[in-house]
Amino acid sequence: MSLSPFDHPILSGLFGDPELAGFLSADADVAAMAQFEAALASAQAECGLISAEAAEAIGHLTANLVLDMDRLRAGLGRDGVVVPELVKQMRAALDEEAAQALHFGATSQDVMDTSLILRLKSICAILSARIAAIEGALEALGGRFGKRGLMGRTRMQDALEISVADRIADWKAPLARHRARLEEIKSRLLVLQYGGAVGTLEKLGEEGPRVVATLADKLGLGTTDKSWHNQRDSIVEFAAWMSLVCGSLGKIGQDIALLAQSANGEIKLSGGGGSSAMPHKSNPVTAEVLVALARYTAGSSGTIAQALVHEQERSGAAWTLEWLVLPQMIMATGSALLLATRLLSSVESIGKD
Amino acid sequence: MSLSPFDHPILSGLFGDPELAGFLSADADVAAMAQFEAALASAQAECGLISAEAAEAIGHLTANLVLDMDRLRAGLGRDGVVVPELVKQMRAALDEEAAQALHFGATSQDVMDTSLILRLKSICAILSARIAAIEGALEALGGRFGKRGLMGRTRMQDALEISVADRIADWKAPLARHRARLEEIKSRLLVLQYGGAVGTLEKLGEEGPRVVATLADKLGLGTTDKSWHNQRDSIVEFAAWMSLVCGSLGKIGQDIALLAQSANGEIKLSGGGGSSAMPHKSNPVTAEVLVALARYTAGSSGTIAQALVHEQERSGAAWTLEWLVLPQMIMATGSALLLATRLLSSVESIGKD
Amino acid sequence: MSLSPFDHPILSGLFGDPELAGFLSADADVAAMAQFEAALASAQAECGLISAEAAEAIGHLTANLVLDMDRLRAGLGRDGVVVPELVKQMRAALDEEAAQALHFGATSQDVMDTSLILRLKSICAILSARIAAIEGALEALGGRFGKRGLMGRTRMQDALEISVADRIADWKAPLARHRARLEEIKSRLLVLQYGGAVGTLEKLGEEGPRVVATLADKLGLGTTDKSWHNQRDSIVEFAAWMSLVCGSLGKIGQDIALLAQSANGEIKLSGGGGSSAMPHKSNPVTAEVLVALARYTAGSSGTIAQALVHEQERSGAAWTLEWLVLPQMIMATGSALLLATRLLSSVESIGKD
Amino acid sequence: MSLSPFDHPILSGLFGDPELAGFLSADADVAAMAQFEAALASAQAECGLISAEAAEAIGHLTANLVLDMDRLRAGLGRDGVVVPELVKQMRAALDEEAAQALHFGATSQDVMDTSLILRLKSICAILSARIAAIEGALEALGGRFGKRGLMGRTRMQDALEISVADRIADWKAPLARHRARLEEIKSRLLVLQYGGAVGTLEKLGEEGPRVVATLADKLGLGTTDKSWHNQRDSIVEFAAWMSLVCGSLGKIGQDIALLAQSANGEIKLSGGGGSSAMPHKSNPVTAEVLVALARYTAGSSGTIAQALVHEQERSGAAWTLEWLVLPQMIMATGSALLLATRLLSSVESIGKD
Repeated sequence: MSLSPFDHPILSGLFGDPELAGFLSADADVAAMAQFEAALASAQAECGLISAEAAEAIGHLTANLVLDMDRLRAGLGRDGVVVPELVKQMRAALDEEAAQALHFGATSQDVMDTSLILRLKSICAILSARIAAIEGALEALGGRFGKRGLMGRTRMQDALEISVADRIADWKAPLARHRARLEEIKSRLLVLQYGGAVGTLEKLGEEGPRVVATLADKLGLGTTDKSWHNQRDSIVEFAAWMSLVCGSLGKIGQDIALLAQSANGEIKLSGGGGSSAMPHKSNPVTAEVLVALARYTAGSSGTIAQALVHEQERSGAAWTLEWLVLPQMIMATGSALLLATRLLSSVESIGKD
Repeated sequence: MSLSPFDHPILSGLFGDPELAGFLSADADVAAMAQFEAALASAQAECGLISAEAAEAIGHLTANLVLDMDRLRAGLGRDGVVVPELVKQMRAALDEEAAQALHFGATSQDVMDTSLILRLKSICAILSARIAAIEGALEALGGRFGKRGLMGRTRMQDALEISVADRIADWKAPLARHRARLEEIKSRLLVLQYGGAVGTLEKLGEEGPRVVATLADKLGLGTTDKSWHNQRDSIVEFAAWMSLVCGSLGKIGQDIALLAQSANGEIKLSGGGGSSAMPHKSNPVTAEVLVALARYTAGSSGTIAQALVHEQERSGAAWTLEWLVLPQMIMATGSALLLATRLLSSVESIGKD
Repeated sequence: MSLSPFDHPILSGLFGDPELAGFLSADADVAAMAQFEAALASAQAECGLISAEAAEAIGHLTANLVLDMDRLRAGLGRDGVVVPELVKQMRAALDEEAAQALHFGATSQDVMDTSLILRLKSICAILSARIAAIEGALEALGGRFGKRGLMGRTRMQDALEISVADRIADWKAPLARHRARLEEIKSRLLVLQYGGAVGTLEKLGEEGPRVVATLADKLGLGTTDKSWHNQRDSIVEFAAWMSLVCGSLGKIGQDIALLAQSANGEIKLSGGGGSSAMPHKSNPVTAEVLVALARYTAGSSGTIAQALVHEQERSGAAWTLEWLVLPQMIMATGSALLLATRLLSSVESIGKD
Repeated sequence: MSLSPFDHPILSGLFGDPELAGFLSADADVAAMAQFEAALASAQAECGLISAEAAEAIGHLTANLVLDMDRLRAGLGRDGVVVPELVKQMRAALDEEAAQALHFGATSQDVMDTSLILRLKSICAILSARIAAIEGALEALGGRFGKRGLMGRTRMQDALEISVADRIADWKAPLARHRARLEEIKSRLLVLQYGGAVGTLEKLGEEGPRVVATLADKLGLGTTDKSWHNQRDSIVEFAAWMSLVCGSLGKIGQDIALLAQSANGEIKLSGGGGSSAMPHKSNPVTAEVLVALARYTAGSSGTIAQALVHEQERSGAAWTLEWLVLPQMIMATGSALLLATRLLSSVESIGKD
């Protein structure tokens, strides 16, 4: 039992997903925040709001950023968000003009939400590719064993024989839908956050829309008519999508654990888990963990949905709730996809010859 | 405190939604089940699997169906699903050939899931129209008060003044997205369930696909490559969507309750709730109830997502869990949309002149 | 699929619990509210705050109460609580003095929370007795089959043989703990709510504590130092307890469903559910429904816990959330206990001879 | 946005709780596992099951344990639990007799659950002391400002004036109940886990009860009649208790955030959070974070309750789910208690003079 299984010295042997963890690290977060500030300065220079020199100085700084993490942590403890201290440290490394130009018309949430979205863009691509890979693995499994028979079971009782291909089709169909859903979600999710103090870009005057378009273009993100500070539906929709993915993988895990029961013996898995008390056992650990991750993300999706009641122009309470839930859900989903791949590749045979 | 607020003799004064409740009644459910059986017989007659006379007799019966509800209830208590007893009662009213033709190649879940989907089709249309109506109400409110000032507030503190139009834009933007989402979801959700005992239409032989296409066409539903008995992702996706809708309405409710605070007085509502102890009060009851419904559907979306782990060819446990959660979520969503409309129409003024 | 399975014309064949439903009906609620008002008047007469005649008139009225339910429903729709309209109707049937004396120093929440608690007192007794009965049934089962062998299974794999008595001990031990927990909880839960408009009994002056003690005594409830309007911990604790009970029953259900698998055949159940497609099947419906109810109450316990953030002196939002969740949880728990009893009594044999 | 706020390089500035994190670290977990193995050997030596020399060797080893963490992580990835690899490494450092004596009659879950319980014992003491300290802080606050007036508010509307003491009484009363609850829970929670492969101590014969009693005594834990491998009610009960605690703190946080609204100004807090866009603001960050932690633990309590359906003699799925939720809930609770203390100590004044 320990802090978080996803970056735990021991448990990460099972739950670890270094690729996704990289995007969720503090370093990656701060780097994406700096990327936002640099792109903002560049866009504002193009629109004539700050000087090209200031933008260049900011760009140079962000490319060579050295931060005092202890003071960032202290700043977070004080302000509830890291940005005021981050901007302070960045300004201290700039000349006065560039310092003033930095973070112009922006608020903490612009920086943090856009940092999240930039990283979600990469994460979405990875998740989608992993799902497709599992579909491929299922197809391969179907190629090898699809024609074999399998007892079809309803309400835990033997019903009628089906083929392995039938069961695999049930495992695979939702995955294709999940990829299609993600494409739809991405059009709403991967959008710039930039609205200033209360979401109205009040400091930019008439230049607001042009800066937004330029900035979004530089960052490779879409835009919304107005900033979405207090509209969290696309974040929660993405979380719900992750629970769908993990749920479908959990069904595969549950089915395989049931197939692997000693009395059935309808599946043969390599590399089952050992027991400290019973050397004869080979446990379908990976299959079970998929069930656990499905139940975890299912429940978590209900928790993060509470963050939709995001009062007024910015709710510290609702927003903070997202931070507590979303990264863990991303890691759980990444982990489930890796484990499902591992589980399927461990299938030595399935069904009756 | 009482059983279910949505069809409660007293509480329905606030939470009631007779239009949606109609679709979720036992009568509507059974009627849609009968509609499935009639359409199935008709499709199978067209495909030459049963005689035209049998199909006609079944169609005639379903149009004039009289059922013994007590025995249906007893049958449900015995079988966990109502269909075996329903089919038994229907068969008793048919001649032998038609009795045999009835429910051919179908299983209980085909009947029940398709009944649900048929009613969800109507429900989706109603929900979408209600959302659009709220968008219209918000637009009208913006027309009347949009140019007025309103204190923008972040982290519960006064920040900078915004306009009423700014706030209304934040309320309205997610609603348009919700309608767009529903269109996407409908293409996956409003699909026929027909797979037989273990989802393989084993009794239909080569005619399976043709019967499916014909049946779906008659019912006005889409199709999937294979039945989706144990793939519940679209059901859970729809539930998650409802939590998004209620969450966005809950944000409106929370904002209005905060605006209505005595010290702010930035909104004037007609018809506030009275108090048994303090006659001077006018409570923003509707606004608060929207928050409650948002928190309820948020949590419920996490509960129903547990039903994704639907083992083997049919899970009595996972499927039953849906029955416990989904109808209440639909009622909560319908109720929230009605209450939001009522709340917005009670706004006499908002913002500072 | 239909509104609420617990009072549904068909589904109640499985989920129904008329005994508990009686306590949660609108009639029982209103009757307990009237009981509060009568006891309050009686206590206040004893303490000299109102006249004995007024108290007697109120007592007489409540014993012969005829209410206009349509107007109660309309009142609830207007005020968010039924009490203002209830008191109005009661006052209309009293002379002026008694009308003024009625509901003296009370607020809606006093009436409604105490009505709930009075009914929870009866409900707790029923739940506790049902749990004890299940413990008895398990003991009897152990007496019949305890010495038989059963394959012990860990991580879904055969491990070592245990005895049926071992398995039954695992089913039974939590139930005894649940009864002990309920006794502890009752001391906190079964307490009077009476605090007036803002919880301070401001209208009673020095007589507050004496009225509270007398009233609680008349109602057979405990007291707290101060009213608990905005302290919902004992309500949520009770809900969490229900999820523990249902979880333990769900484990029994899951175990029995696994034992009943065709390949195991380690349990024989009478009266399994039939299938509309496969006449040979005997489905462990009751066992599966126990799992569904466990997952439902588990999730619901997380939803109602959101009601703990009950702001200021009374939160319409948080309080309403309780109404949406608690009655359904009570019904689910009652239903699970009835179904567990039925399931255990259907066991014809368990284990290997 | 980043992995886990509780041990994050930056976010831990707000959410960090090094004292509790220490108990949940991998090192502390492994150390408590070793403590179990040493105490087990010592108890078995006392009962004559292994030699005193073997027990001494094991005790010496555990006091000087050097482990290969990389191999522990790899072992966890293979077996789903760390114990087989841990025992293997320990055995490699022992002579043959002691190696055989090590872990005698135990299974992985014995080691891991008891490790958790040993650490929960310390954690419970810390949580209880922190709650008591908050009660003290509230009492002190009452001493300073209790007689001042405060507007009592119901349903977000001004109702009647109360005193600051009244509000503080509402904040404080649940905390005393939480401490009482924890004492009750501890008697069920702080118990030894030791049952062997399938919970029956099958290798110990008649000596089982004596070894259990001796071992529990050495570890300062209680006992149960039979091991509780598959009975998770006390774990989930403890989790539910944490959600109660955080909920009560969340109510304090919500109330203070509402008091701190600019239009009210009924509370003065030192050290509010700064904004990167609005230097004039002083945000009640800590108050908001308490609300977020309340919503997080509320939802999480519903998720971990799913682990009650723990099938057969050991469920890898249900057990793993606990690991995903419980440590985060403990950290959230510890964090909430630290933040509540900090928030209350930042109150410079409350109420109207």
